[in-house]
Amino acid sequence: MIWEDTAGAEKARLEASIPQEWRVTIPQDVKSTLSLPQDTNVLTEAELRITNASATELVKQLGAGQLTSVAVTTAFCKRAALAHQAVNCLHDFFPDAALARAKELDQYLAEHGKPVGPLHGLPISLKDQLRVKGRQTHMGYTAWINKVDQDSSVMVDLLERAGAVFYTKTSVPQSLMVCETINNVNGRTVNPRNKDWSCGGSSGGEGAIVGFRGAVLGIGTDIGGSIRVPAAFNFLYGLRPSHGRLPYAKMANSMEGQETIHSVVGPLGHTVADLRLFVGSVLSQQPWAYDPKVIPMPWRQSEEEAAKAKIASGQLTLGYYECDGNVLPHPPIVRGVKTVVNALQGAGHNVLPWEPYEHPYAVDLANKVYASDGGADVYGVLKESGEPAIPNFQDLINPSLPKLDLNEVWDAQLKKWHYQMAYLKAMEAFEKKHGRELDAIIAPITPTAAVRHNQFKYYGYATAINVLDFTSVTVPVTFADKGLDKVNDTFSPLTKMDEAVQAEYDPEAYHGAPVAVQIIGRRLTEEKTLAIAEEIGRLLGNEVAS
Amino acid sequence: MIWEDTAGAEKARLEASIPQEWRVTIPQDVKSTLSLPQDTNVLTEAELRITNASATELVKQLGAGQLTSVAVTTAFCKRAALAHQAVNCLHDFFPDAALARAKELDQYLAEHGKPVGPLHGLPISLKDQLRVKGRQTHMGYTAWINKVDQDSSVMVDLLERAGAVFYTKTSVPQSLMVCETINNVNGRTVNPRNKDWSCGGSSGGEGAIVGFRGAVLGIGTDIGGSIRVPAAFNFLYGLRPSHGRLPYAKMANSMEGQETIHSVVGPLGHTVADLRLFVGSVLSQQPWAYDPKVIPMPWRQSEEEAAKAKIASGQLTLGYYECDGNVLPHPPIVRGVKTVVNALQGAGHNVLPWEPYEHPYAVDLANKVYASDGGADVYGVLKESGEPAIPNFQDLINPSLPKLDLNEVWDAQLKKWHYQMAYLKAMEAFEKKHGRELDAIIAPITPTAAVRHNQFKYYGYATAINVLDFTSVTVPVTFADKGLDKVNDTFSPLTKMDEAVQAEYDPEAYHGAPVAVQIIGRRLTEEKTLAIAEEIGRLLGNEVAS
Repeated sequence: MIWEDTAGAEKARLEASIPQEWRVTIPQDVKSTLSLPQDTNVLTEAELRITNASATELVKQLGAGQLTSVAVTTAFCKRAALAHQAVNCLHDFFPDAALARAKELDQYLAEHGKPVGPLHGLPISLKDQLRVKGRQTHMGYTAWINKVDQDSSVMVDLLERAGAVFYTKTSVPQSLMVCETINNVNGRTVNPRNKDWSCGGSSGGEGAIVGFRGAVLGIGTDIGGSIRVPAAFNFLYGLRPSHGRLPYAKMANSMEGQETIHSVVGPLGHTVADLRLFVGSVLSQQPWAYDPKVIPMPWRQSEEEAAKAKIASGQLTLGYYECDGNVLPHPPIVRGVKTVVNALQGAGHNVLPWEPYEHPYAVDLANKVYASDGGADVYGVLKESGEPAIPNFQDLINPSLPKLDLNEVWDAQLKKWHYQMAYLKAMEAFEKKHGRELDAIIAPITPTAAVRHNQFKYYGYATAINVLDFTSVTVPVTFADKGLDKVNDTFSPLTKMDEAVQAEYDPEAYHGAPVAVQIIGRRLTEEKTLAIAEEIGRLLGNEVAS
Repeated sequence: MIWEDTAGAEKARLEASIPQEWRVTIPQDVKSTLSLPQDTNVLTEAELRITNASATELVKQLGAGQLTSVAVTTAFCKRAALAHQAVNCLHDFFPDAALARAKELDQYLAEHGKPVGPLHGLPISLKDQLRVKGRQTHMGYTAWINKVDQDSSVMVDLLERAGAVFYTKTSVPQSLMVCETINNVNGRTVNPRNKDWSCGGSSGGEGAIVGFRGAVLGIGTDIGGSIRVPAAFNFLYGLRPSHGRLPYAKMANSMEGQETIHSVVGPLGHTVADLRLFVGSVLSQQPWAYDPKVIPMPWRQSEEEAAKAKIASGQLTLGYYECDGNVLPHPPIVRGVKTVVNALQGAGHNVLPWEPYEHPYAVDLANKVYASDGGADVYGVLKESGEPAIPNFQDLINPSLPKLDLNEVWDAQLKKWHYQMAYLKAMEAFEKKHGRELDAIIAPITPTAAVRHNQFKYYGYATAINVLDFTSVTVPVTFADKGLDKVNDTFSPLTKMDEAVQAEYDPEAYHGAPVAVQIIGRRLTEEKTLAIAEEIGRLLGNEVAS
């Protein structure tokens, strides 16, 4: 069988999983599909209200028996079906299994008068790296189609124990190593706000489905921006926790066993409270008892409260940077950073310029690590089916690259440690100079607003933070505005990449595209960094529950 | 210059650093040098009392001004000088610098009426991997002699800030990868209890000097038993913390950047209270602000107290094993495990057999990792000076071994994770079966009591725990006894290694050699595992302050 047949059959199976009564017709000339749920009659008014609510609000009502899981699951299944028709975000869709599970949870609540756990009855979307026993995880590789998972990922088991309902697995780019979402099985996933824009990647299907509110919470992974970029491009919050905080065990991956820069797993959602609900629910299940890489560190309420006290008293000290020394962001992003700085300063906090310490060095190191096996792992899987590499990946990593020798990898690992150490020293110097603790750093997460297809060129704003293993939260800020964000006519390129990226800016084409920043905390500061991100959302007026 | 000249000059420099008035004559036929301090008149009665005290007691008196740091430092310098003459345990000795520092600390206390930190005035010995600015770290490599350190290790900086005084750097085996202590610069370090026995390794100099009470606390490192084995061979407690608990940054090492199995740093001492003092003092200095690999996890008093409450109520559940499936320990070690089991059962705790889950697999994996670069790093350093490899190392790793390909290393890393996961699952099954939490596991740390020279053959009891990254504490138990520990005449070898190890047992030769076990806790359970180790010491009557 040639690979096109296998991939085509899988795509047909997926399309057939959308029930007839949830199908709609979408005019070809529509750019934004965000209003599709309102504009069609697949969802009832009640279902629209449910899918527009926050996860925090939903679990409250589910736990109190004010909403049934069947009702909530039905609503999200319908909206996910619309999302897929609109933006092509699914790899797998299993509403029947989800509704059966929802029914069981409703019965449990009726019988026991209490929820099974903190996520009782809540549908959660899964990136197609998370395994669900009995289903498949093709991850965009033709060779992996129809391989049935014998075991669930630890994250899936724990969420299930906390009461979550699974109904979707969402699209990823081939290899997971790029920040747009396209593969030979499913094709391309686009942005619900404008089909000419990317939904981001590699957790692009999650970004798109949550952005469309076909899911209220999604789970992504991030080795070089793959949670933060789709969050940014879909006007969402996204948490890249530090390595060891949340369980990655038994998930599918590219380049498995590569540990020089770890991929991490984390949530995407509409509010920080929802991300906190997710993290707290997982930690309450003691993930370290199942995934040996997880640190035995429960949710530290005291850290959250200390941060909130500092916030309440207007005593935060934040650094910020607009340019990392490699590539200047487009005007909407520079304005986004300024907007956040102004909002915090307006609330009395200290916001001071942060000199991004040798980020170009970190970016080079990251690229070396990502390409360290010369693509052997990814190209090996492609060879199994005979399918070609997607151009987005081939441009980054291809078999002509030399594989690193083991001692070269050790050298890279040592360099990483030394770089991290030097970064801490730079932070210490900042703190000594200003006599204040540096609470977090405000920075671009991409140089562009939600990018046009095949235009994602520079990963460095994301990857430098992966090298540091710092906690980072994407915060949606505003939208590109052709009236405000004029072409930068004093621009003088720092690098060839800088020139190429800036040349892509077109005020008309990007008008309305989501603009985000990342809030960067030290390693394993999820409680504090989320609290600061939440406060920024509150100050901007973007943190709305529904 | 040929390497012998460089090494010889360094050895001569070291010997000249022992002041004339601290030199003694040791008869050739003496096996044990433990009583040398009492038998000679280098130390005063007061100095003998000081050096026989615990660190916990000493810091109390130092902080209260009841003892001066000059007095305490003088006492330990003298006793360290005797230790070196007895067992050849030093690589560097700097009493003048130490006494100058002690004087400053005494002045500080006099002026401010309070100690600088929790270790105020306390001398601590350093394995010759820890860097002290302005001194050298040759680590047994001729090529590294006379390279002056431009910066101190993070651990050294933090201990200094906590008030510690440094006066010694102690011997290690060439490469650090073996559990005896011999190199071409310093020769061999022997056991204070019997010069025919090894002091262990690689933190062998630390084991010997603390065993001799030339130091009250020592700092070792452990990638395959290198803290636990010298602790065992010198009747000491030794803590191998989990990776990420204590700062390793800026220390010298072999195979730097190798992170598949991390080397970790931890203390050796005479009491668990002293180890706790050490760990607590380091954590109080927030090592995670300086070493990015350290987890922001302060000493968790609540974990310690929960463990102590469980101990007090006789409610511990421990597993134990005598054989790992590869090599049966010598009779004294088997008796050591039984002694601990009996003591705990006698106190009402639950002690149940633990099936060591596929340890031979873990041991093979560890050996593969240790040899993964085919010795390129170590032999590269040897080549710089032209010195030969020590046989103990050459037997394990030599340039004829193939270097692993990067994807093979990733595969090993993945196997490690899966193994760790399977181990957690086995623990979960144990807990379900017995309806009780498994608090820790009692196991041999070596198959032999303090081993005869060049007879250390099997590392697996230690290395399986390094693969798991579990917290482990060496607990001294008893001494080999030719009257009790007869040759095992029903022995039937499991493996060739098993046969070779058991053949080495000779009741006469091992009579009196220290026997220890390790107490193994889950990852990052230093508080709990130390509490359990302390209770075992108390039950055995071995936990004595002086």
